[in-house]
Amino acid sequence: MDLVERKDRFYVGVDLGGTKIMVGTVNSVGQIFSRAKKKTRAGKGPEEVVRRIIDAIGEALDDGGMDLSKARGIGIGAPGTLDMANGIVTFAPNLGWRDVRLKQLVESRLGIPTFIDNDVNMGTLGEYTAGAGRGAKDVVGIFVGTGIGGGIIIGGRLHYGFNYTAGEVGHMVIQVNGPKCGCGNRGCWEALASKTAIARRIKGALDKGRSSILKDLVEDWSKPFKSSLLAEAIERGDKLADRILKETCVYLGIGVGGIINLLGPERVILGGGVIEALGDKMMPIIKETALNYTIGNAGDNVDIVRAKLGDDAGIIGAAVLAKQKVDRDEEN
Amino acid sequence: MDLVERKDRFYVGVDLGGTKIMVGTVNSVGQIFSRAKKKTRAGKGPEEVVRRIIDAIGEALDDGGMDLSKARGIGIGAPGTLDMANGIVTFAPNLGWRDVRLKQLVESRLGIPTFIDNDVNMGTLGEYTAGAGRGAKDVVGIFVGTGIGGGIIIGGRLHYGFNYTAGEVGHMVIQVNGPKCGCGNRGCWEALASKTAIARRIKGALDKGRSSILKDLVEDWSKPFKSSLLAEAIERGDKLADRILKETCVYLGIGVGGIINLLGPERVILGGGVIEALGDKMMPIIKETALNYTIGNAGDNVDIVRAKLGDDAGIIGAAVLAKQKVDRDEEN
Repeated sequence: MDLVERKDRFYVGVDLGGTKIMVGTVNSVGQIFSRAKKKTRAGKGPEEVVRRIIDAIGEALDDGGMDLSKARGIGIGAPGTLDMANGIVTFAPNLGWRDVRLKQLVESRLGIPTFIDNDVNMGTLGEYTAGAGRGAKDVVGIFVGTGIGGGIIIGGRLHYGFNYTAGEVGHMVIQVNGPKCGCGNRGCWEALASKTAIARRIKGALDKGRSSILKDLVEDWSKPFKSSLLAEAIERGDKLADRILKETCVYLGIGVGGIINLLGPERVILGGGVIEALGDKMMPIIKETALNYTIGNAGDNVDIVRAKLGDDAGIIGAAVLAKQKVDRDEEN
Repeated sequence: MDLVERKDRFYVGVDLGGTKIMVGTVNSVGQIFSRAKKKTRAGKGPEEVVRRIIDAIGEALDDGGMDLSKARGIGIGAPGTLDMANGIVTFAPNLGWRDVRLKQLVESRLGIPTFIDNDVNMGTLGEYTAGAGRGAKDVVGIFVGTGIGGGIIIGGRLHYGFNYTAGEVGHMVIQVNGPKCGCGNRGCWEALASKTAIARRIKGALDKGRSSILKDLVEDWSKPFKSSLLAEAIERGDKLADRILKETCVYLGIGVGGIINLLGPERVILGGGVIEALGDKMMPIIKETALNYTIGNAGDNVDIVRAKLGDDAGIIGAAVLAKQKVDRDEEN
């Protein structure tokens, strides 16, 4: 790798999650030089979290032998709802934050231009730049975990929409009067096809007396359900787990088909915890269903692929965001 | 109106439908100077239809006192699936056409650059330029008739998508395993919220012995259902018609909410025969439902409005398409 680029034209990407902070130093094409990781400790308040972000940035710089003053920009992917223009995390239940001026807090301490965006957009931008989205023009990223989040790239740029909320795919209704969603409505995609929905259906079947090894594997249903346990159950031939996963893949495929009909992306990228744990089994069913639900030639040669970068996607996307913003500011 | 613009910088917009051809001469900001209208007579074959298009263009020019040689371009909105780049109508069941080289047929006879696009995109572009979409940046147009079609404008330009099929909103599923759709799948938006879906539900209720004045108003249920009869029944206080229209508005609103969550448009424009006939009653329910189904602040200040231009939207949109294409070709 070019030493000049490494020393003088790098970006810092931060993925701020509810439990961990991940940081990377990244070049202009989305390659990571060095990394660092810390627990978020959100319970200790925003000041402490910001201190931990800054410590992690310091560690990543040290690890790469780089000088903070040479960083062109810092990007941070944050959970929750944001006021991106002003760099404020307006509401992040995972962090217990309301109206935290994250951009300003980091910029005032480090003196490097800092930009924030939501974590799902950053994951999509990361995959687009350096992962499963490379070479495509219009991409939709869909991340299946506790909920279902999405990011949209049109013509190589994130599409934000009027209220900076575009990509809220989890709250498209696919089943009028369907199961209750966390948002208060019924039948949202994430109420049928997220990890939470899978857990709810398994628990419901167990309560009705259906047998499954998940009855023993899951110790406490009130705690977040783990994709790894679902994968273990399926690995061990559990029929209930297998059936419910397949149903979920059909719901996922129906939603992906609708997105293709509406928006006509060149590529749809599926990631997140559930896909990371079970993608081999899931992707063929999702793809087949999605293409069955596209109209006319809408699905022709549209790729429906699995995310490639795992946790790195958010770090890389945040760094690429910083690059785009700094480039734009220099042009103006 | 500026005489120079009128004489020397106008465009011809053509709305080619299954039953009628409508033509207008239009200036660069979407104002119509003159019009003409003819029956399509699709049964007589493509050559005859093209002859009728050309006759109608001639009449519109005569009516406006304009000279064909001064037309900068011709735009045609056509039904069905198209190969836009090559100007071919690949499949239009309404016209009985397969692989008709419409662009070439018109250009070779008139010698004016001609462009084709689908009728729903043209309606959306027309409303965007001179109707309910004026002043907005990102707009989704939704036309509710026999089916539900849509057009998407992002940053002032039609968004076509990878296979030029973007905007096929009618085939997003909103009810998994719902009623059968014309496309072969179940639960598509248009299987629940189009005029066809309304007719199916009314017929179903009558078959079950429910009373409604539509039993007398509709002579033959095998023929296309008319929005005007539904409007008449509601006007006359018919309870069944009223209930089914309200249900339909809820389905429409749920779909609009999903589109806002996914794409974040600034404005959503609803048009088409059903809205033209019953919009006053429908729009408040559609709006309220849509905003109930948007997540967080996604619906804040998003306008959900009724189309303004009626049949003119398609003519104006086609003319504006021609302008955009000619401008682009001159730049290159």
